[in-house]
Amino acid sequence: MKLTIERAALMRSLNHVQSVVERRNTIPILSNVLFKADGDSLSMTTTDMDLEINESVAAKVDRPGATTAPAHTLHDIVRKLPDGADVTLEVDASGNSMTVKAGRSMFKLSCLPTSDFPEIGNAQLPSSFTIPAAELRNLIDRTKFAMSTEETRYYLNGIYIHAVDVNGSKVLRAVATDGHRLARFEMPLPDGSEGMPGVIVPRKTINELRKLLDEAADAIKVSLSESKIRFSFDHIELTSKLIDGTFPNYEQVIPTKNDKIVEVNPKVFSNAIDRVSTISDGKSRAVKIALNGKVMTLSANSPEAGSATEDLEVNSNDNMEIGFNARYLLDITSQIEGDGCRIILADSASPTIIQDAGDSSALYVLMPLRV
Amino acid sequence: MKLTIERAALMRSLNHVQSVVERRNTIPILSNVLFKADGDSLSMTTTDMDLEINESVAAKVDRPGATTAPAHTLHDIVRKLPDGADVTLEVDASGNSMTVKAGRSMFKLSCLPTSDFPEIGNAQLPSSFTIPAAELRNLIDRTKFAMSTEETRYYLNGIYIHAVDVNGSKVLRAVATDGHRLARFEMPLPDGSEGMPGVIVPRKTINELRKLLDEAADAIKVSLSESKIRFSFDHIELTSKLIDGTFPNYEQVIPTKNDKIVEVNPKVFSNAIDRVSTISDGKSRAVKIALNGKVMTLSANSPEAGSATEDLEVNSNDNMEIGFNARYLLDITSQIEGDGCRIILADSASPTIIQDAGDSSALYVLMPLRV
Repeated sequence: MKLTIERAALMRSLNHVQSVVERRNTIPILSNVLFKADGDSLSMTTTDMDLEINESVAAKVDRPGATTAPAHTLHDIVRKLPDGADVTLEVDASGNSMTVKAGRSMFKLSCLPTSDFPEIGNAQLPSSFTIPAAELRNLIDRTKFAMSTEETRYYLNGIYIHAVDVNGSKVLRAVATDGHRLARFEMPLPDGSEGMPGVIVPRKTINELRKLLDEAADAIKVSLSESKIRFSFDHIELTSKLIDGTFPNYEQVIPTKNDKIVEVNPKVFSNAIDRVSTISDGKSRAVKIALNGKVMTLSANSPEAGSATEDLEVNSNDNMEIGFNARYLLDITSQIEGDGCRIILADSASPTIIQDAGDSSALYVLMPLRV
Repeated sequence: MKLTIERAALMRSLNHVQSVVERRNTIPILSNVLFKADGDSLSMTTTDMDLEINESVAAKVDRPGATTAPAHTLHDIVRKLPDGADVTLEVDASGNSMTVKAGRSMFKLSCLPTSDFPEIGNAQLPSSFTIPAAELRNLIDRTKFAMSTEETRYYLNGIYIHAVDVNGSKVLRAVATDGHRLARFEMPLPDGSEGMPGVIVPRKTINELRKLLDEAADAIKVSLSESKIRFSFDHIELTSKLIDGTFPNYEQVIPTKNDKIVEVNPKVFSNAIDRVSTISDGKSRAVKIALNGKVMTLSANSPEAGSATEDLEVNSNDNMEIGFNARYLLDITSQIEGDGCRIILADSASPTIIQDAGDSSALYVLMPLRV
């Protein structure tokens, strides 16, 4: 294999693919990028055995071929090369090392045989549909903060995506929960996704995908089976195993009879929560919300630090008290882009619903804390 | 004590004084700021028993008085208050708590008695002189990277500042070394510093001072005795204990007979070192420099990762090889602001001198590595 490629193009793709590679690997080949040069393009693939990313980029291929080389080292090298440089990658005759040349710099990197590289990307993915990048970004942003990180509840370590029928109209739904809060996002069902199975997309895949979407073109093609999902766009293919588990029946967690409605400006609300929670103790960061008609009083107490209170004007007619984890409240309010944050309560011991008053696509459920 | 102060002014000073407060304190009072309100100013003091900072700021004092309150909590609160707010601080009748009010926010913080607060700032400091802020910034920047962090060699955990006579002209000298590299900075001796004792200013004091100098006015007053030093400027007084130890005889470390001179552009040199060292192993990050007349070849080897080489054009007539720690070389080259980095060598086993070819105020000595 021998090819020349512009540094910026190589850098951009290496940035994407090295991100999937774990820092510590017990299996050496998983530290490497699989390079395949053919025609006028260079294909790069990395994997952690659960997630695989492949990206193709234009290159001047002098001698087609393939090899694997350390992803992070190569990324470091290319990052430090001067802007505008042409980079030559050449595998030596033995196949055991690859030379990286640019200007007067030369690097020799150890290679591993391509036959050792585990490719998980080849799979039958019968369902497929297209979703605009902006909608997929929304779907992820509105739900991902609620994913669980508890390893024992592995079936909650991702976003559950499935098609449902809501009062006769078909929607694509994304749900994430860690048992303390739940986030649900809905959008019109894309053409072709009617028969898709419900799938749980793992946390790492969600995070990698979200990073790539920052610079993604308009249309994202989603293909899936019951065990794998693939996102294809630009010259990237991200293929992931799905979480092999059953997502709990989340619908029973979403209260339907809450009757006390408060509306507050989300920016004013979140700034006040942030200030008051400065005083709250340790992990739970409890903040108490007391409603008294048009006045909402936020307060926090700590035996050591002292106390904090702040009054807000709200749109409400109710009187009640309830406590929440300030961190969880802030996660939710930061997703509300409109001027109104609608809080729908039952009583101080029951799950509370929070929504953007002007956008019903996302719904959040938050469990109260005793305060 | 009761007073009102503009949020931005309080924030600026709290930013300075809270930085001295350690995150974990076994003595509770050391987590607190000592507040003293009198006339039309508020004085804030914090200490870690070795270093004390005091800053005064204009305030509308309704009731003079003093108290102590948690520095980090207060800093967090004030940081989160809206820009432009007026903040009222009021100690309650019992003296056990302080109320912080701004707009519709109210915080009550636990206080500790002012009598518990250890003040180390009162000291006889017979020597004193003035130094321009820019010169003091230079003095610190050119030397601080070479301070040791080894606790057993406590007498190297700071910058040694002293007056010396160099060929009949008096200079103020700053020296730092960790045994692997040494940095020396010289400037004309300021008026009044002739009789000053040689002092070792501790690392934390250097770091805090350096941060404050970013926004400091022109003239910094330095006062000192054999055990303490004070830096006074704007409305700030930084008083520190000195390291009670003997700085080693560093002059014998600086070679005088090195005869091989190489000149290289410091930016080109440091970029090349940075690239080549991507390959070098672990902690030592060894880079080999081979001189061959007008060509300098940098190289690094790692049994695992591979190898790297890069050629540079230099101004030299010598042939030799020597190895260095890449990190240490980069620390030094980043301090060279001119176009020429002059490297003065003896042989591959001897200390090497590095200087800015156009500025002799700083001199660096670097021990070689075997490569």
